[in-house]
Amino acid sequence: MAIGGDGTFTGLHVFYEEFGVPSICIPGTIDNDLAGTDYTIGFDTATNTAVDAIDKIRDTAISHNRLFFIEVMGRNSGYIAINCGIAGGAVATIIPEESMTLDELFAKLDEGGKTNKKSSLVVVAEGSKIGGALELAKKFSERNNYFDIKVTILGHLQRGGTPTYFDRVLASKMGVGAVEGLIQGNHSSMVGIRNNQIVYNNFETIINSRHEIDTESLRIAKILSI
Amino acid sequence: MAIGGDGTFTGLHVFYEEFGVPSICIPGTIDNDLAGTDYTIGFDTATNTAVDAIDKIRDTAISHNRLFFIEVMGRNSGYIAINCGIAGGAVATIIPEESMTLDELFAKLDEGGKTNKKSSLVVVAEGSKIGGALELAKKFSERNNYFDIKVTILGHLQRGGTPTYFDRVLASKMGVGAVEGLIQGNHSSMVGIRNNQIVYNNFETIINSRHEIDTESLRIAKILSI
Amino acid sequence: MAIGGDGTFTGLHVFYEEFGVPSICIPGTIDNDLAGTDYTIGFDTATNTAVDAIDKIRDTAISHNRLFFIEVMGRNSGYIAINCGIAGGAVATIIPEESMTLDELFAKLDEGGKTNKKSSLVVVAEGSKIGGALELAKKFSERNNYFDIKVTILGHLQRGGTPTYFDRVLASKMGVGAVEGLIQGNHSSMVGIRNNQIVYNNFETIINSRHEIDTESLRIAKILSI
Amino acid sequence: MAIGGDGTFTGLHVFYEEFGVPSICIPGTIDNDLAGTDYTIGFDTATNTAVDAIDKIRDTAISHNRLFFIEVMGRNSGYIAINCGIAGGAVATIIPEESMTLDELFAKLDEGGKTNKKSSLVVVAEGSKIGGALELAKKFSERNNYFDIKVTILGHLQRGGTPTYFDRVLASKMGVGAVEGLIQGNHSSMVGIRNNQIVYNNFETIINSRHEIDTESLRIAKILSI
Repeated sequence: MAIGGDGTFTGLHVFYEEFGVPSICIPGTIDNDLAGTDYTIGFDTATNTAVDAIDKIRDTAISHNRLFFIEVMGRNSGYIAINCGIAGGAVATIIPEESMTLDELFAKLDEGGKTNKKSSLVVVAEGSKIGGALELAKKFSERNNYFDIKVTILGHLQRGGTPTYFDRVLASKMGVGAVEGLIQGNHSSMVGIRNNQIVYNNFETIINSRHEIDTESLRIAKILSI
Repeated sequence: MAIGGDGTFTGLHVFYEEFGVPSICIPGTIDNDLAGTDYTIGFDTATNTAVDAIDKIRDTAISHNRLFFIEVMGRNSGYIAINCGIAGGAVATIIPEESMTLDELFAKLDEGGKTNKKSSLVVVAEGSKIGGALELAKKFSERNNYFDIKVTILGHLQRGGTPTYFDRVLASKMGVGAVEGLIQGNHSSMVGIRNNQIVYNNFETIINSRHEIDTESLRIAKILSI
Repeated sequence: MAIGGDGTFTGLHVFYEEFGVPSICIPGTIDNDLAGTDYTIGFDTATNTAVDAIDKIRDTAISHNRLFFIEVMGRNSGYIAINCGIAGGAVATIIPEESMTLDELFAKLDEGGKTNKKSSLVVVAEGSKIGGALELAKKFSERNNYFDIKVTILGHLQRGGTPTYFDRVLASKMGVGAVEGLIQGNHSSMVGIRNNQIVYNNFETIINSRHEIDTESLRIAKILSI
Repeated sequence: MAIGGDGTFTGLHVFYEEFGVPSICIPGTIDNDLAGTDYTIGFDTATNTAVDAIDKIRDTAISHNRLFFIEVMGRNSGYIAINCGIAGGAVATIIPEESMTLDELFAKLDEGGKTNKKSSLVVVAEGSKIGGALELAKKFSERNNYFDIKVTILGHLQRGGTPTYFDRVLASKMGVGAVEGLIQGNHSSMVGIRNNQIVYNNFETIINSRHEIDTESLRIAKILSI
């Protein structure tokens, strides 16, 4: 029994294939990018930590008329970023899966700047295809004279902290599910939660696919950022 | 458009029946006891607030060998309590829907006390059928000489605080859902979220039924409290 | 070397008197009531925890027009209470050392109620001479029809939680001070901090006196509660 | 009456000199670098915010054997940094006023790395004379093969958040002090707190001097980082 992400699972799968050691996995990664489960353990805590940090930054954004580029975790997945964007009231959220082009982003920011809008936040996932927070800030500052631009990179800050109730209950349910799965002979599988039910997924399926970003969240983020 | 619980909905329904005023509701109550939605707005925040308080209490429980009765909100619903019980590692959780008898509870506590077990926590929902935290503590203290017994009543503490990312994203999705529902003619209904999808529920259905406690959570709480 | 309050110190003193065991103490109690030091370790953390709880309660006080009686720790000392009262914007703070009479308190609350004032908070130290939060609430509710009255008893919640930077730095300074004091031969004494300087106090002085409440804080609390 | 730092004070002073407008100032800056007061409003909150962030980072440092360079605010003053260093258990703290040389820092880190020590944290004030967190990390990574090196820049995160009880009580005392000072004719001065007493400082003194870093804190930080 192990807790982890893609790498852990691949290792355990090899172990089973070659030596026949039965194992069952619990999805533990803050990125929420594993197939076969609506939520991974750690995602809820990490997202709340990031939103709490964004709230603190926004406190100063309101009083000083600034533009903040805030980089959150998510090398291949925009789950944390899109939820931070909605919860933090971002003017734009840049994720690896899909994003506005640099021109679209700048056009949107220009608009806010020229109309003397309140300070703005742009949430950028680590895995942004159009550049990280530092790079985006640098590029935009070269053509903007409306905003005082600041960058924050949350980094490993998002990996620590006391787990939320959601992550603890999820871990408890998955832990019980893993033990019961092993007893029932669900070897070489990953426990998941789908529509609030414990499910078992074949390792190969998990390793070869991924948890696509929720299109409804993308849609909501766009509607609210207008 | 209104945010609220049972009372709010009943009022709006009357308004619609008598005056034909179309309306759509968003479920906002920390108790998570409304039918037609997996989650109500405020539940995630309130449960995290309660668990955070329980963590602080448990810090002292560990160092002082005590028995704590902690009363959390939930007059008719054990949702907050059962999740606090799992997340806080309670030896027992007393909810309105179903609970051990007084004798079963005391037998369980006796067992812990006699074997010189670490300090214990009992989470009690407001609507406990076998007595509130104060009453249970009083009754148990009359027959126990193992534990130093303490009571905490969280009360309205659970209704305040900054919302979690989950509640903010839920509110955003439901808010968009409500506007779109009105446009589509879903009058006199409540927006809900079921299996991560926005759904619309008829007022009468909501008012006349309730969100039953999740039996899987009850089962997990029992397994973990052994 | 020991960390504790009055009880701990008395024990160590006996130990030294009878057996000649040299010892030095560090003042660790959330009550801040030890003579010979401006601050005891734990006071800053406990007061912040209480103020954080009061903030959450006040969130609901504002929206529901209520009167809250909030009981905080302090059996013999009003330090936590008076600082909570100032920081939380209480209409009155009841401490063991000095307090308004029941009549004065009720007159003040009546005034707020009749003029349709916003919701109010009364902070009550455990050691209140005119009754605890529950008792005060009961007595006032019998003669008031303005407010919806609620009680919260924070209890041991205030003893847990992650220490603040202030308490950590204080503990570090006192810890170093204790070691250096022992080396210098300051036996049977308590390390303290006075005007930001480490000082050594004789045990007997500490045991036979107490840290009186800061009169400036009392004055400020009165000015701000008008 | 105004709240602010050096810049604000200079402006008000000119205003008084040229137009005779009487004014009194309250020291509000997170840097705690103003002469004439032991504490400025905001410093306690900002330091707790930074320490909370450092705690979260250290959670991951323990499990992954890493070296973290964490940059905190303080362009001219090491107050936040030195208190973060003590409270966060840093192996070294780099401040503008005084710091180890690059060679001394690297020697210290090498020592930890070679003896297979637990993960380490270096706290770096913005105004470090030997380079910011990014630069120090880059330089050290070129000669080290012991640690996995990570950088976090807290930035404006430290300027937001709910104020601590200490800052609220300090602001209340200073606010009352400012009003009373004006009534008493203490024009063109800054309210301060020295040894827990409200004091009034002449503008010119404040503008022309600064709050030197507390040497006892420097000494403690060095003792604890061995």
